Amino acid sequence: MSWLLTEDHLADLARGAAVLGTGGGGDPYVGRLLVRAAIREHGPVTVLDPSEVDDDSLVIPTAQMGAPTVVFEKIPAGTEAVTALRALEARLGRRAAATMPIECGGINSMIPLVVGARTGLPVVDADGMGRAFPELHMETFGVYGVPGSPMAIAGERGETTVIDTGTDNRRMEWLARGVTIRLGGVAHIAEYAMSGSEVKRTAIPRTLTLAHTVGKAIREARSNHEDPIAHLGSVLGDTLYGHMRVLFRGKISDVERRTEAGFARGRAGAVSFDGGHKLEVLFQNENLVALVDDEVRCVVPDLVCVLDSERAEPITTETLRYGQRVTVIGISTPDLMRTPEALATFGPAAFGLPYEFRPVEEINA
Amino acid sequence: MSWLLTEDHLADLARGAAVLGTGGGGDPYVGRLLVRAAIREHGPVTVLDPSEVDDDSLVIPTAQMGAPTVVFEKIPAGTEAVTALRALEARLGRRAAATMPIECGGINSMIPLVVGARTGLPVVDADGMGRAFPELHMETFGVYGVPGSPMAIAGERGETTVIDTGTDNRRMEWLARGVTIRLGGVAHIAEYAMSGSEVKRTAIPRTLTLAHTVGKAIREARSNHEDPIAHLGSVLGDTLYGHMRVLFRGKISDVERRTEAGFARGRAGAVSFDGGHKLEVLFQNENLVALVDDEVRCVVPDLVCVLDSERAEPITTETLRYGQRVTVIGISTPDLMRTPEALATFGPAAFGLPYEFRPVEEINA
Repeated sequence: MSWLLTEDHLADLARGAAVLGTGGGGDPYVGRLLVRAAIREHGPVTVLDPSEVDDDSLVIPTAQMGAPTVVFEKIPAGTEAVTALRALEARLGRRAAATMPIECGGINSMIPLVVGARTGLPVVDADGMGRAFPELHMETFGVYGVPGSPMAIAGERGETTVIDTGTDNRRMEWLARGVTIRLGGVAHIAEYAMSGSEVKRTAIPRTLTLAHTVGKAIREARSNHEDPIAHLGSVLGDTLYGHMRVLFRGKISDVERRTEAGFARGRAGAVSFDGGHKLEVLFQNENLVALVDDEVRCVVPDLVCVLDSERAEPITTETLRYGQRVTVIGISTPDLMRTPEALATFGPAAFGLPYEFRPVEEINA
Repeated sequence: MSWLLTEDHLADLARGAAVLGTGGGGDPYVGRLLVRAAIREHGPVTVLDPSEVDDDSLVIPTAQMGAPTVVFEKIPAGTEAVTALRALEARLGRRAAATMPIECGGINSMIPLVVGARTGLPVVDADGMGRAFPELHMETFGVYGVPGSPMAIAGERGETTVIDTGTDNRRMEWLARGVTIRLGGVAHIAEYAMSGSEVKRTAIPRTLTLAHTVGKAIREARSNHEDPIAHLGSVLGDTLYGHMRVLFRGKISDVERRTEAGFARGRAGAVSFDGGHKLEVLFQNENLVALVDDEVRCVVPDLVCVLDSERAEPITTETLRYGQRVTVIGISTPDLMRTPEALATFGPAAFGLPYEFRPVEEINA
């Protein structure tokens, strides 16, 4: 069922999207400000359940692309993603009936809402990662046969670039990353244009609603003086992301982070409060794996989320700092993200990690 | 008057284009092979005098882009520039009536001929640099108001990228260079789409004919046991490039060359045969300035050409080697390339060189 997204939803939505963003997908505060400005100017946004999208209608996902470390310092005007959408429409010779997120995240759940507010287009309640991933070919859209090309990239000065690599989504990512680096490390994009029936077949459904649910659960638990992380676990039980596990509680002891090749890459270490255990999280924009005492406890595509221990506020990879007291949780992903073809595209080996994928609920049975 | 370019023209044309390319514009041997293959398969190419182009017809220049050091090792298939042309036509919603070189050079005088042979389009006898320059905004087209955008870039796998930076040709160059680097250091492009009347107003006319004349003069002098360089000087006297000066004769003593940021940059030193004088040539893909005993003797946009002393064969910056015996000549450029607006775009300061432009015929009066 479609629903109207207003300013009142934004705080919960941004917080929840940042949890699902697993450390990436952009800063929720920036994302929230962008949507708020757009809604105040243009009114609320219609969020469309994927089941309601006409099979033949054209859906064009929109997003921001770039290293979170740069995104954090380079606030967009809010019009860039609309420019990208229009450039792709011009290339296709057809107008979009709706836009959609490509991933969950503090910014990338929000950019399509900014586009929706500014253009009047509805936003489909679904996305192509079911979390955040660092690269554009890591989309369930592509895993299940929708080409990312042609894609449009818009820069802050209104420049547009349209890339067409046919069915080669990795090559598209490679060229788009080069353009984004030249644009200063952040750009806005429109890609994976698809039909309504392709949305139904390839997208992870209802992740905007899920993000709102997650953010709201954390807020309500805080108000009720409950443990927000425990409450989050019980709320997730009723969703496609049914298993949550607490992997570690402790204090961040060291962070290595470098912005290279257009990504924020690095690792964070933590020690348990009793000093007896250690955690290591590796990331490329997003958290990829959590190792506790050198044992894998959760690995991509399952979600590794670093939350502050007291308020369960998600901590993105670019804001990890020495001394933060954190609870690290693992969350299971929907079946569509765990098939052999999905794992070939965004499983551990796709990131060069020497681990087999095992579901978080099995590792932590 | 239009003329038919056949395989018989190619050796002279490639040699002469490499002289005008001032060390850049690509290797003449590779360029010649590409056109020969296309002409053998598809027949000769119509070369159209700029005065014969209809004012309203669409001309789309085509070229190869990249560091000569890479181009030299990465031979194109010959179809890439056609792919770029077609991508730009699709963007413009209009077919080209002709193609045209963007610069003179061993490869870039040739690529439009490859396109002409493969598509049946005539090639306009003119270009946008009147020599070779390393960057895409350094076109007389742009100096006199034709925007480079939209431009199309094709890679070796058939990928296309269409960049639109409005009237900002420097920004177009910046993004296109980023894409070219991602494509492995070389790409093929179509840009500065313009009308016939714009060709007449902004292009340097008859540079294909000029290249053929230069190459033929050198060959004929060799056959007649005349000094080819002296003969070249007398032939140039009747053209828009009326003044040739011999700046230096000697032996290459050292070459520094690095491929960085998508360009081949460096310098070459030489000592005179009597050991009493020294030459320094600075280059960025193309030769930019010749200093003899630390005095500027010829500087951009005037042509600095390094020829082998015996046969007057042009030596490109990527084939400069220790021990080569060279004659370095300076050639004056047409008035259209020496206006204040032209010098602002491709005079010494545009390359960060601390010299004022002075015409080569004045410096060496």
